[in-house]
Amino acid sequence: MNRVALITGSTSGIGLGIAKQFAQNGYHIMFHGLESNGLEIATQVGNKNNVKTAFSNVNLMQPDQVEELVKKTYDIFGRLDVLVNNAGIQYVSPIDEFPNDKYEAIIAINMNAAFYASKAAWKYMKEQNFGRIINISSVHGLRASEYKTAYVTAKHGVIGMTKVLGLEGAPYNITCNAICPGYVRTPLVEKQIPDQAKSHNMSEEEVINKVMLKKQAVKSFVPVEALADMALLLAKETSSTITGSEFVLDGGWTAQ
Amino acid sequence: MNRVALITGSTSGIGLGIAKQFAQNGYHIMFHGLESNGLEIATQVGNKNNVKTAFSNVNLMQPDQVEELVKKTYDIFGRLDVLVNNAGIQYVSPIDEFPNDKYEAIIAINMNAAFYASKAAWKYMKEQNFGRIINISSVHGLRASEYKTAYVTAKHGVIGMTKVLGLEGAPYNITCNAICPGYVRTPLVEKQIPDQAKSHNMSEEEVINKVMLKKQAVKSFVPVEALADMALLLAKETSSTITGSEFVLDGGWTAQ
Amino acid sequence: MNRVALITGSTSGIGLGIAKQFAQNGYHIMFHGLESNGLEIATQVGNKNNVKTAFSNVNLMQPDQVEELVKKTYDIFGRLDVLVNNAGIQYVSPIDEFPNDKYEAIIAINMNAAFYASKAAWKYMKEQNFGRIINISSVHGLRASEYKTAYVTAKHGVIGMTKVLGLEGAPYNITCNAICPGYVRTPLVEKQIPDQAKSHNMSEEEVINKVMLKKQAVKSFVPVEALADMALLLAKETSSTITGSEFVLDGGWTAQ
Amino acid sequence: MNRVALITGSTSGIGLGIAKQFAQNGYHIMFHGLESNGLEIATQVGNKNNVKTAFSNVNLMQPDQVEELVKKTYDIFGRLDVLVNNAGIQYVSPIDEFPNDKYEAIIAINMNAAFYASKAAWKYMKEQNFGRIINISSVHGLRASEYKTAYVTAKHGVIGMTKVLGLEGAPYNITCNAICPGYVRTPLVEKQIPDQAKSHNMSEEEVINKVMLKKQAVKSFVPVEALADMALLLAKETSSTITGSEFVLDGGWTAQ
Repeated sequence: MNRVALITGSTSGIGLGIAKQFAQNGYHIMFHGLESNGLEIATQVGNKNNVKTAFSNVNLMQPDQVEELVKKTYDIFGRLDVLVNNAGIQYVSPIDEFPNDKYEAIIAINMNAAFYASKAAWKYMKEQNFGRIINISSVHGLRASEYKTAYVTAKHGVIGMTKVLGLEGAPYNITCNAICPGYVRTPLVEKQIPDQAKSHNMSEEEVINKVMLKKQAVKSFVPVEALADMALLLAKETSSTITGSEFVLDGGWTAQ
Repeated sequence: MNRVALITGSTSGIGLGIAKQFAQNGYHIMFHGLESNGLEIATQVGNKNNVKTAFSNVNLMQPDQVEELVKKTYDIFGRLDVLVNNAGIQYVSPIDEFPNDKYEAIIAINMNAAFYASKAAWKYMKEQNFGRIINISSVHGLRASEYKTAYVTAKHGVIGMTKVLGLEGAPYNITCNAICPGYVRTPLVEKQIPDQAKSHNMSEEEVINKVMLKKQAVKSFVPVEALADMALLLAKETSSTITGSEFVLDGGWTAQ
Repeated sequence: MNRVALITGSTSGIGLGIAKQFAQNGYHIMFHGLESNGLEIATQVGNKNNVKTAFSNVNLMQPDQVEELVKKTYDIFGRLDVLVNNAGIQYVSPIDEFPNDKYEAIIAINMNAAFYASKAAWKYMKEQNFGRIINISSVHGLRASEYKTAYVTAKHGVIGMTKVLGLEGAPYNITCNAICPGYVRTPLVEKQIPDQAKSHNMSEEEVINKVMLKKQAVKSFVPVEALADMALLLAKETSSTITGSEFVLDGGWTAQ
Repeated sequence: MNRVALITGSTSGIGLGIAKQFAQNGYHIMFHGLESNGLEIATQVGNKNNVKTAFSNVNLMQPDQVEELVKKTYDIFGRLDVLVNNAGIQYVSPIDEFPNDKYEAIIAINMNAAFYASKAAWKYMKEQNFGRIINISSVHGLRASEYKTAYVTAKHGVIGMTKVLGLEGAPYNITCNAICPGYVRTPLVEKQIPDQAKSHNMSEEEVINKVMLKKQAVKSFVPVEALADMALLLAKETSSTITGSEFVLDGGWTAQ
């Protein structure tokens, strides 16, 4: 039996990295994201790893579309073993200028969508007596940075949600944990390096060490592969006693 | 000069207790709540303590009404020194049966209203070069209980918000902290004791010790007075370096 | 009845500040410290505030001397209401060069002495059905800095000890809490400012903001008065449900 | 190249489980423990997995013996890649009756030995530009239980030490993390089940669920295999950005 993973925001960045590694480990994957070539990405990953994949581009701001995404996954694959709530957006502004609609969108996508997806997945996971919910939170689920009110609020909220679902899932072999990465090397971030180097009048290495990774002790980005390793560990059958916790991969950010 | 405090949800329970103690210490108070006799309560507290009070019953689920509440406070009193984001609601349900509208309402009132109120208060506090935002979170801002997905999520979110506002307020002498009470003796809770005693077939003392205060090491409710003491300390002028933290009054709940 | 406080390391810095404020609030004080004029300091504070004081200069590295200090307090004053475990030393070194004896001394004074003092005080506090143990930990009880292995280890250890004693004290109205200050303005620190300004080739203000208070969002030292306010609040009779927690006064250090 | 792991307390329980899994993954192992057949155990694990092993029974209460253990590992195997500070002892007593020598022994073995071993290993790890220090802390590194002053203090201390070493190791590709297990199924624990069942007049299942695992939401022991999985992940070359953090495997204990 191949286990089935639904990963939101999986057509790029962290989500895509996790999806690839799960596919390599024999999981069928339900992709989700906004990339126009999402179906193509899903198909390629599936073919390469000889697993089944599907793709959806529902809008996570709509609770009913989140529910539909979960239902569709189950309808296509006949199971839903792992739910990775990964999709997220960011907006940066001082509190007194923070646009209300940006705040609401971040809360909706980064936090509420995890609630609606977990709620919808719960009944399948209960029936299966197996479920692994993995919330991609952030160091910002544990610490703050200026000008990120909405993001930090949402990511802390997800940590709380993770703990409750960890408790409620205990009788059903459903676990729920959060992964809290520091600064991750995604295509989006890589593209910013030369621009920031120019604007700060620094070398690219200086921008990475002194600007981007200022709060990390380890002056390297957290590789997506490390997050995926952690997610795979949490998803294991033998990980049924690991629940309600956060797993921090942050180069020492939160240690100081 | 009398300092001015706006306290949401202050016509009963924790909010009222805090309001009374602030009034005794010379603060003018903007009351807010849903009690039909809210204006009467506000007037009585004002008369008794020789401070000015006013009252509003806006709906905190509406961002524009939250903003209006803050603006009205400033318009009436000419200052806004202390904002206590206290109003909150609760709903208890297993995740798979949790009503969407209850989830949204708890997030809106217990978390988002604190964002809108703080945002609206920020410009006044910046101008004054003085502000004290006190968020009444909960032990559930740090720990979970089953069946409280929305509440725990919102209360954790508020902790994150508190940290960001603590950082952003530093240049303006605006501090932001959270108070995290355990089980507090409010009229609402007191009324439940005889009912629970009957339904559990226990004495009232047993219900308090074994059911309500099960997770506290100290088998007494946290008195509202202790919360108000803490809030008054945080509001002091000399407390300008206390910011971005949570202050836990919980009878040892989170220690274990 | 005057309550009685024993404060270790109280002939200078934080301990002295706390002692003065407790004396102003009517506490008899047992001073302890290594200053050669400790008795004089104790007498002056006593006279000024019309409370009784005494002084001891026992070596906190010796368990039996710690026990003797507690016993002496009780013998002189006939009570022991508040124990402030404040004395501490620091040593900074990379781990591979950290002298064993420095490590052992920091663990002994900053951590083990709190164990021996609390253990010795416990029987008196149990008899009185009243006790308030206040451990002066640090942000370093919650976060690390490089080259401070011993200090950070000891201060984290004290946080753990605080939680256990909070739980064990519950039946006896003994509470135990920790205060975690950021950078505090003590005479020792003030003296370092001009020297560091010279060595960094900075103005004194720059040294404070960019070197000393680098990790705080609020660019001011935490005043001893704020710590003493917090300690007084924790010592109140009405604070019996506040226990097992840490109270962070750090200008936003741990929030980020 | 086979990597080399030194695991203290590895002739039984958690340490032995971790040692076996590391051996299966190609690590040479330095065993350490007090079992009289320690050498035999080491040899068997080595033969079964075709890796080299050695054994030492030094006394971890003696700093110089800890240093000797580390040096011996390097001398035998020519490397030291992974140090697992696992050895620990327990003693349970109310604070006022806690024997001083028991307190000192727990601090020495559960906490100080990790300092001395890490300090001694540091120079080899720096030279190699590779090191992985894994401290086996506990949920008691984050939460308290009554009557465990020494254990909880030591385990919290280890968490602090972990953070400092995480920061200091960053330039040398040395990481340091803690694993915090809940209740683990060890031979020692298994033996207690029938006895406790008898003394509580309960079935063995009841003893497990209601006494031993009372604080876990998941009513199963944490399997040693899960701890070893986590340790192996932390030891990977690609885990160089995971540092200074604690990894909690506790069946939901700390979530509530």
